[in-house]
Amino acid sequence: MTQNVSTIEIRVRYAETDQMGVAHHANYLIWCEQARTDHMRALGVNYRELEQSGIRLPVVDASVRYRALAYYDALLDVLWWVGRASSRLVSFGYAVERNSDLLATATTSLIAIDPNRAVQHLPDQIRECLIAIPDPVRL
Amino acid sequence: MTQNVSTIEIRVRYAETDQMGVAHHANYLIWCEQARTDHMRALGVNYRELEQSGIRLPVVDASVRYRALAYYDALLDVLWWVGRASSRLVSFGYAVERNSDLLATATTSLIAIDPNRAVQHLPDQIRECLIAIPDPVRL
Amino acid sequence: MTQNVSTIEIRVRYAETDQMGVAHHANYLIWCEQARTDHMRALGVNYRELEQSGIRLPVVDASVRYRALAYYDALLDVLWWVGRASSRLVSFGYAVERNSDLLATATTSLIAIDPNRAVQHLPDQIRECLIAIPDPVRL
Amino acid sequence: MTQNVSTIEIRVRYAETDQMGVAHHANYLIWCEQARTDHMRALGVNYRELEQSGIRLPVVDASVRYRALAYYDALLDVLWWVGRASSRLVSFGYAVERNSDLLATATTSLIAIDPNRAVQHLPDQIRECLIAIPDPVRL
Repeated sequence: MTQNVSTIEIRVRYAETDQMGVAHHANYLIWCEQARTDHMRALGVNYRELEQSGIRLPVVDASVRYRALAYYDALLDVLWWVGRASSRLVSFGYAVERNSDLLATATTSLIAIDPNRAVQHLPDQIRECLIAIPDPVRL
Repeated sequence: MTQNVSTIEIRVRYAETDQMGVAHHANYLIWCEQARTDHMRALGVNYRELEQSGIRLPVVDASVRYRALAYYDALLDVLWWVGRASSRLVSFGYAVERNSDLLATATTSLIAIDPNRAVQHLPDQIRECLIAIPDPVRL
Repeated sequence: MTQNVSTIEIRVRYAETDQMGVAHHANYLIWCEQARTDHMRALGVNYRELEQSGIRLPVVDASVRYRALAYYDALLDVLWWVGRASSRLVSFGYAVERNSDLLATATTSLIAIDPNRAVQHLPDQIRECLIAIPDPVRL
Repeated sequence: MTQNVSTIEIRVRYAETDQMGVAHHANYLIWCEQARTDHMRALGVNYRELEQSGIRLPVVDASVRYRALAYYDALLDVLWWVGRASSRLVSFGYAVERNSDLLATATTSLIAIDPNRAVQHLPDQIRECLIAIPDPVRL
């Protein structure tokens, strides 16, 4: 891994488990979102302020590949990196690990829309943040 | 029960269970909210339109008493009734049942706020809906 | 659409919205799961009983393509169909619609595992249910 | 506050907001649960292991009083303390704060049940942990 990959820690909550005794699969999208917004904040992109300026970044595509189960109380690392970016769409990659064991990989793609739901170019704030990451890492 | 009690059906979702093998206790507040908004819609109070007019109805108090566990796939009845209302606060009561067995009771209280988070009198729409319910039922 | 596609209705819950004013994207996986388990129950596969027999069906792959936003209180149709099945893996397709407008498509793949997390052949109950669906529909 | 109060930090997730632009009220119960289980782990009570021994601690009563709204991305402190304990029931208190501003207070009560759902005395592990807290603090 290089410095182009950011990591956050997630502790699997009891409320996130299901009766299979593992973290429910929908939670991975929530953890990925947290990794993405936490790191974008660190890069100077405050999503809360961005929204207040009228821009929203809905997810248009998401996929998760689950390789091993995550249990209650497990401390997970959620890795995040920039995949591919165009003027109107940016894709991110994620890996969920436990003690360096790979539990899942995921990708999400986002676009920018204005309050009338019209697609916009990605805000400069986002683009500059991406330029600052010259060499995206792929697992 | 009288006609002053409204009922909705809820099927316990797999994602709502936890590893104890039962519906996680936080979901009851979500089911109560659905019973409340479904019934208010039937009474002519469309919460979505209310919000668009600038009024929001945050919950200021909630309590749940859990008497029996709810399992995955169970078909629940969530009963809803108006408890107490003043010019600025309205309280609702709820009962969660399965095949007429009482699983939980709950109460929530709501106030009205404007976009600046200042407390308002409850909207006429809400008050009229409450007046239409002359004899609130209490379990 | 043919009889091989099953549909359930989902009302977008307030708790499922996020501050973008739309249903949070992770909920689609939960709705798809509900469509799948509701319909499998109708086909005679009770997932609750299946689990009690020791078999679990974790999701190993999930993807969602979001085409339009879903708002609070919207009544959605979640369509479900069998995609591809082998002895050890079964894939399902989903479409989320509102008034016949396509909001999202999704796929999930499931495997069967025993209590020791060892991969098993898909249970006969599942296989027979799939055989009963001779001509899977794809959007 | 004294050393009898434990604190965890919670960052409000985007998925936890609703279209009112604040954290949905049901999430507070999940945060309280995380505060409780995190601290019990620190006191030597591993809830995961407790469950594996056959004991479960369902919540039988929960109440939350919401005093101010919590926004997306806010860093919250969730304080946790032991309220009242008997041989069969233990109550916990919670406060949710932001920069020392009180956003909410809550209480939950738990009992112990065995795999047949029969009520048990609270496990020694729990009782010893409570004895170690001689002077419960109440807000």
